[in-house]
Amino acid sequence: MAQFINSKEALVTEAIDGVLRTARGRLARLDGFPHIKVVVRTDWDKSKVALVSGGGSGHEPAHVGYVGKGMLTAAVCGDVFASPSVDAVLAGILAVSGPAGCLLIVKNYTGDRLNFGLAAERARAFGIKVSMVIVDDDIALPDLPQARGVAGTLFVHKIAGALAESGADLDTVNAAAKQVIDQVASIGMSLDTCTVPGSPKEDRIKAGKAELGLGIHGESGVELVDFTGAYAAMKTVLERLKPHARSGDKVALLNNLGGATPLEMSVLAEELANSDTIGEIRYLIGPAPMMTSLDMRGFSVSILPVSDAELALLQSPVPLPDWPGCSEINTPELLPIPDGLTPIKPIPSGHPATAAFVAQCCDVFIAAETDLNALDAQSGDGDTGSTLAGAARALKAAMDQLPLADATQLYRAIGLELSQSMGGSSGVLLAIFFSATGDAASSGLSHVEALKVGLARVQEVGGAQPGDRTMIDAMTPALATLPEGFAAAAKAARKGADHTASIVHAKAGRASYISEDRLIGHNDPGAEAVARLFESLA
Amino acid sequence: MAQFINSKEALVTEAIDGVLRTARGRLARLDGFPHIKVVVRTDWDKSKVALVSGGGSGHEPAHVGYVGKGMLTAAVCGDVFASPSVDAVLAGILAVSGPAGCLLIVKNYTGDRLNFGLAAERARAFGIKVSMVIVDDDIALPDLPQARGVAGTLFVHKIAGALAESGADLDTVNAAAKQVIDQVASIGMSLDTCTVPGSPKEDRIKAGKAELGLGIHGESGVELVDFTGAYAAMKTVLERLKPHARSGDKVALLNNLGGATPLEMSVLAEELANSDTIGEIRYLIGPAPMMTSLDMRGFSVSILPVSDAELALLQSPVPLPDWPGCSEINTPELLPIPDGLTPIKPIPSGHPATAAFVAQCCDVFIAAETDLNALDAQSGDGDTGSTLAGAARALKAAMDQLPLADATQLYRAIGLELSQSMGGSSGVLLAIFFSATGDAASSGLSHVEALKVGLARVQEVGGAQPGDRTMIDAMTPALATLPEGFAAAAKAARKGADHTASIVHAKAGRASYISEDRLIGHNDPGAEAVARLFESLA
Repeated sequence: MAQFINSKEALVTEAIDGVLRTARGRLARLDGFPHIKVVVRTDWDKSKVALVSGGGSGHEPAHVGYVGKGMLTAAVCGDVFASPSVDAVLAGILAVSGPAGCLLIVKNYTGDRLNFGLAAERARAFGIKVSMVIVDDDIALPDLPQARGVAGTLFVHKIAGALAESGADLDTVNAAAKQVIDQVASIGMSLDTCTVPGSPKEDRIKAGKAELGLGIHGESGVELVDFTGAYAAMKTVLERLKPHARSGDKVALLNNLGGATPLEMSVLAEELANSDTIGEIRYLIGPAPMMTSLDMRGFSVSILPVSDAELALLQSPVPLPDWPGCSEINTPELLPIPDGLTPIKPIPSGHPATAAFVAQCCDVFIAAETDLNALDAQSGDGDTGSTLAGAARALKAAMDQLPLADATQLYRAIGLELSQSMGGSSGVLLAIFFSATGDAASSGLSHVEALKVGLARVQEVGGAQPGDRTMIDAMTPALATLPEGFAAAAKAARKGADHTASIVHAKAGRASYISEDRLIGHNDPGAEAVARLFESLA
Repeated sequence: MAQFINSKEALVTEAIDGVLRTARGRLARLDGFPHIKVVVRTDWDKSKVALVSGGGSGHEPAHVGYVGKGMLTAAVCGDVFASPSVDAVLAGILAVSGPAGCLLIVKNYTGDRLNFGLAAERARAFGIKVSMVIVDDDIALPDLPQARGVAGTLFVHKIAGALAESGADLDTVNAAAKQVIDQVASIGMSLDTCTVPGSPKEDRIKAGKAELGLGIHGESGVELVDFTGAYAAMKTVLERLKPHARSGDKVALLNNLGGATPLEMSVLAEELANSDTIGEIRYLIGPAPMMTSLDMRGFSVSILPVSDAELALLQSPVPLPDWPGCSEINTPELLPIPDGLTPIKPIPSGHPATAAFVAQCCDVFIAAETDLNALDAQSGDGDTGSTLAGAARALKAAMDQLPLADATQLYRAIGLELSQSMGGSSGVLLAIFFSATGDAASSGLSHVEALKVGLARVQEVGGAQPGDRTMIDAMTPALATLPEGFAAAAKAARKGADHTASIVHAKAGRASYISEDRLIGHNDPGAEAVARLFESLA
């Protein structure tokens, strides 16, 4: 799978600069590319405890996305899935640490432990107070006490970050971080592996299966499980977490491992909120990509039982768009559907002349059914005649229900009838035509002017203009000349309809998709129908 | 490709409820599932112009993610890639529109135009002031005036939303929206198609190629172009946009079509910021998924020339995590690397007894090279002996440079020397051991106590405990008995080292990955080295 990068080697440095392009005044990097890739806060005065985290890249927005007020002070980045060097970590520590000291937040992977650990020693040799915590929240490998550090690390970033921002000293921040690490548990599930830049993609997860218990570096999951859908997936994950979850109010962190869509993540959030597998999950962070594994189509859930103080720290606002916040889980709020969806039936009224006029119009379309179908077969599916004739028959059948004595109401009623009896785009467009005409008539316009308003609305909504080979090519000249009488209108409509046979570069409507030689010499069926209507009325 | 959903039919309703789970007090939905899927603001008093947008789902966070203060008032959702019904749109309009009226923001797709258009007519029949704008920002099909509406729609949401929130009337909001639509241009590029739930995935883009000019419903791109990397991809996209970009300050919106990773998007942001193909791009929205096409691995760029007033509206803050903000584009800020990365060379000093002692220690490891390699071959790559002997030789060679007369400095210097001359985890761990010991010695602890501090630090960073089949199993008892003299320490170290031959359930270090039968009966090489050292000193 190709990726939007330039080279594996330049990937991380270019991505960091891409982030920094819009971060002036908040973030900077140390001038040590490519070896030293460290992003630091610039709105930072070293009077508070500094928080330094990082590790291999490929987990974005972690860690650069969490550098800022109330979270990390610096992120030390390695190449994709590779620990940063001791020098890089040391540079990060030295850049941000003042008298209050520095806490290193390290995910439990050997390379990170060693490199952050040695950097800490070298920083201590400068007299800097450095503490280090190692996050080991992954529960996938229960027999290995050296559990991996995964998305639960975000809880440490946020709680320690909020405490440090509030001015707490290093021992307090360190103790709070350790308390979180002691309580947090995470596990992930994925439907596909990730694509490591420069490496062929592994295709190890078969259809119908999912991997449970993954690390965040493309390692295989601990278990291959059947995958039957979002409900069962979330249930499995929560069941694994359950033995690790202390009683009391808990916060869940729902992390997108990279490749799941927002739709999928929202479905998983709904399943998580709906589940009673683990009780007392009252708050949710996410769903969002927080600790990703490149483009892995998977998710992870981390659970943390929280005290009131921890909850307040988790919920304190930070100006970081990549932190999704920590919200209470509730039932969705429902509002009643507003009145008015069922259109008010007009009160029927009789008016023999109008009834005869409407019937005459309908009969035109019924009579033209075969001809119009034949014309439509040139450029479409050959059903324009049947569609119009069917609508005409339905309108005739509904004649007794129409408010024939009230022109305004009649236009609206015809619009309503057509929107219900006539399928497809043409039904909607004719419904708009008659509804808008009725509105215009109700404001006192003449029939002709009201019909022009209706036609304008059809053009606005449908997007067709004269010359686009639609019914508009007959209707526009017909309405323009209608004040001179039906005979003039019929002549104009016929001229417009016949002209459509020469229009081959249609810019809207169905004809825009059809090749020229199928169009030439054949009238547009909609325009032809309009012409026949006016000819009959003349 | 399987997805984290339960069924195609329930996908959108479940996803909406998933979003609403954490949105109480801000968002609700109309009680019309599954037919009517409308999300509305609940912090809304109808005194201002309502903004209603929506369309088919599959574009998340659009549109539900943009419902909130300063952007949309309601989002009307269809099924995936399917327009919502007229009833659904009408319900949305009726739910949020007051005397100030309502603006419908519609992307230019036939179904949306027709359904929003007819709903507008039906709402007008209730006396509601409704305007409708149609966004047609896609420039991929220059010959088709009916251009599609894609990510440029976000500009309309934000600018019209900020104006409406400020209390502007419908005509003003409508005019501002039309001004944006008149100026905005967008185009997308993708490396892969999207996975439509319930449909087999199309695999139409060959390796080395990218599609340029895509819609957001899985339609093919207008053109298949060669793909050579992020630089050329962004250049191509900007060259297509250039003829559409008026002069003056411009805002770019960099949209993730769904499946590109944050790393890729940041690289693309860097390429965009770095490019001079289109001048005067001064502000950037994103990169972020804003108007996605499910999981499509692609991006789009939208360009809008802005007035100062429009820029202020785009930059006004909104409490919506899915809106990434509009930031000035700058050069990345660089800070100098802090002093201290190059460790201060200790001042050499002579002390014959210490030199002899260090040399004796080194000779132990040099002599044990073959034996330790053989032991290591049982559980590893057979190089422990060579690694230790190599480090010992390097240390002996550096003897003249060591501060032999100052114990504290000597520990640190040995740590530094080992971190430079000895590869692998063991080099880092021994460097940490000697550095931490030196720190402890400098604070006045005895040699033995200082060495214990060093060992504790190694355990903390390395994660190994006694019983884990490492050098710690010999070192711990040796240091515990060292106050009684080297003989006692040697006896304790030997006992500890020999015990490692029976440890098969190691919990840390390399042995934790090795099968039992390869371990049993063989001492851990690190522990053996420690035992031999103390035996020699005794």
